[in-house]
Amino acid sequence: MSVICVGTMAFDAIETPFGKTDRIIGGSATYVAYAAGNFVTPVQQISIVGYDFPPEEMNELKRRGVMLDGVEIVKDKKSFFWSGKYHLDMNSRDTLVTDLNVLADFNPVVPDSYQGAEFLMLGNLMPKLQLSVINQLTVRPRLIVMDTMNFWMDTAMDDLKEVLRKVDVLLVNDGEARQLSGELSLVKAAREIMKMGPRFLIIKKGEHGALLFHENHVFFAPALPLEEVFDPTGAGDTFAGGFIGHLAKTKDISFENMKTAIIVGSAMASFCVEKFGPERLKEITKADIDERLTEFVQLVNFDIDLV
Amino acid sequence: MSVICVGTMAFDAIETPFGKTDRIIGGSATYVAYAAGNFVTPVQQISIVGYDFPPEEMNELKRRGVMLDGVEIVKDKKSFFWSGKYHLDMNSRDTLVTDLNVLADFNPVVPDSYQGAEFLMLGNLMPKLQLSVINQLTVRPRLIVMDTMNFWMDTAMDDLKEVLRKVDVLLVNDGEARQLSGELSLVKAAREIMKMGPRFLIIKKGEHGALLFHENHVFFAPALPLEEVFDPTGAGDTFAGGFIGHLAKTKDISFENMKTAIIVGSAMASFCVEKFGPERLKEITKADIDERLTEFVQLVNFDIDLV
Repeated sequence: MSVICVGTMAFDAIETPFGKTDRIIGGSATYVAYAAGNFVTPVQQISIVGYDFPPEEMNELKRRGVMLDGVEIVKDKKSFFWSGKYHLDMNSRDTLVTDLNVLADFNPVVPDSYQGAEFLMLGNLMPKLQLSVINQLTVRPRLIVMDTMNFWMDTAMDDLKEVLRKVDVLLVNDGEARQLSGELSLVKAAREIMKMGPRFLIIKKGEHGALLFHENHVFFAPALPLEEVFDPTGAGDTFAGGFIGHLAKTKDISFENMKTAIIVGSAMASFCVEKFGPERLKEITKADIDERLTEFVQLVNFDIDLV
Repeated sequence: MSVICVGTMAFDAIETPFGKTDRIIGGSATYVAYAAGNFVTPVQQISIVGYDFPPEEMNELKRRGVMLDGVEIVKDKKSFFWSGKYHLDMNSRDTLVTDLNVLADFNPVVPDSYQGAEFLMLGNLMPKLQLSVINQLTVRPRLIVMDTMNFWMDTAMDDLKEVLRKVDVLLVNDGEARQLSGELSLVKAAREIMKMGPRFLIIKKGEHGALLFHENHVFFAPALPLEEVFDPTGAGDTFAGGFIGHLAKTKDISFENMKTAIIVGSAMASFCVEKFGPERLKEITKADIDERLTEFVQLVNFDIDLV
């Protein structure tokens, strides 16, 4: 079972109330790969990096079963760089620097070796590029999951809507769901967004958990209450990686199994925020993941007798 | 099994983005009684009203098994009146008017007929008055649940801390938990607050659900995602009423059963916000409550195999 993952591989510089980093590894596809790789191989990466992206990082991903045939290395340009500063509540942040570098020329090409993948994860990226990847696939994947952000709603709404018509699952945060639908109530927003194409909608609410909508059903997964959220960067991508990783591993794309996949995504995201960048994701073992999943079961499990 | 409930019985005037009321029935003890009365009788009310409080309302409460021996009626003064306006997000509000009226002279007296109650619900009220009720009880109840608010933290912290030392369960919202503990992280805040007395702490997060802390355990109950929150007034008191009502009904004050009680409280609160004031609470039947509880089970239930 293989998963194609499209997105950025990049450098970030991050400032949070708890500390500051210079230049560390980041990018949506990086986080997705580190998370999904715990559940399924190969993760077939499609991305672009510059001459400065560390070979050790590439090797570490390969060691984890990530295929890099689709990662273009541009010899005379730098990798995409983003720098941001989180506010005290960690739910909002200011972007300090966005250096597109190689990303300005990104024209994703699906390698022949990736054709036939059953799962496609479209990380947050210009909608035209997401569309291009979908159109290059000779067989439609069983499940296409799409992440996006408010920036594309402001600047490329028509393209975004075209991609929406072709995907199965959309991932957005609560503010983006409201912007995309024009509805304040998330229940109404979900109904409107599902009319735009995706049969499943996941609305991420950061420390307040995530909602999964499908037809008239709704499921809620909490975020694990943590003593400290050290760095939220990549938490959404890590969530997506855990989500699609679990679905690909179990080969079951039912609503019932998506509930479990969202819990797995939440568990992976809860690790991500414990250290800067994807550092914590590199350390954890299967036992760590199982222990965290048990915490989620305890967090929400209750008995009730209805007579 | 009886529950003593101390708090206000009052009039409110409410403005929300969805509408406006003139003078409707409100007060913390009113909401607690309407919610708890679905699960346990008698609810033994301790409150104070003026000459203007409607006899029909008293009769409706009596019909539901609420004892009013402890409700003082002041012949020459008006009932407590509060008026507020909710912001668009419904999570914050401005107080427009607070007319204490009878509440300025409130000196709660526990009637002899209430002695021996196994459960005590201290609704949000001046801490000195909450303390006075505890001290009047000849036998300590099995469980004392206390609600409070930021206003008492600002104006009567020493008294508040004295009450905290005598209660089992504290109910506060997230902002109040942070203020009371001086900790930003809710996990750390919970640890500090439990050192102040209560063995159980419930942190209410409005539309983002509620957390229950006890020793090193934590449980999370979501709020039901609603299409429209019509009027949040009284939702916290209704939550408290459902919580203590379920515990009193089942006579089980274990952490496990408190999880269920929080779900029951959340279900009751989800009805409360559907109409102005306690109106919706007066309409619902046992079948409605069971149906809502089933929705909560579906909202959070998932299967996971850990090997």
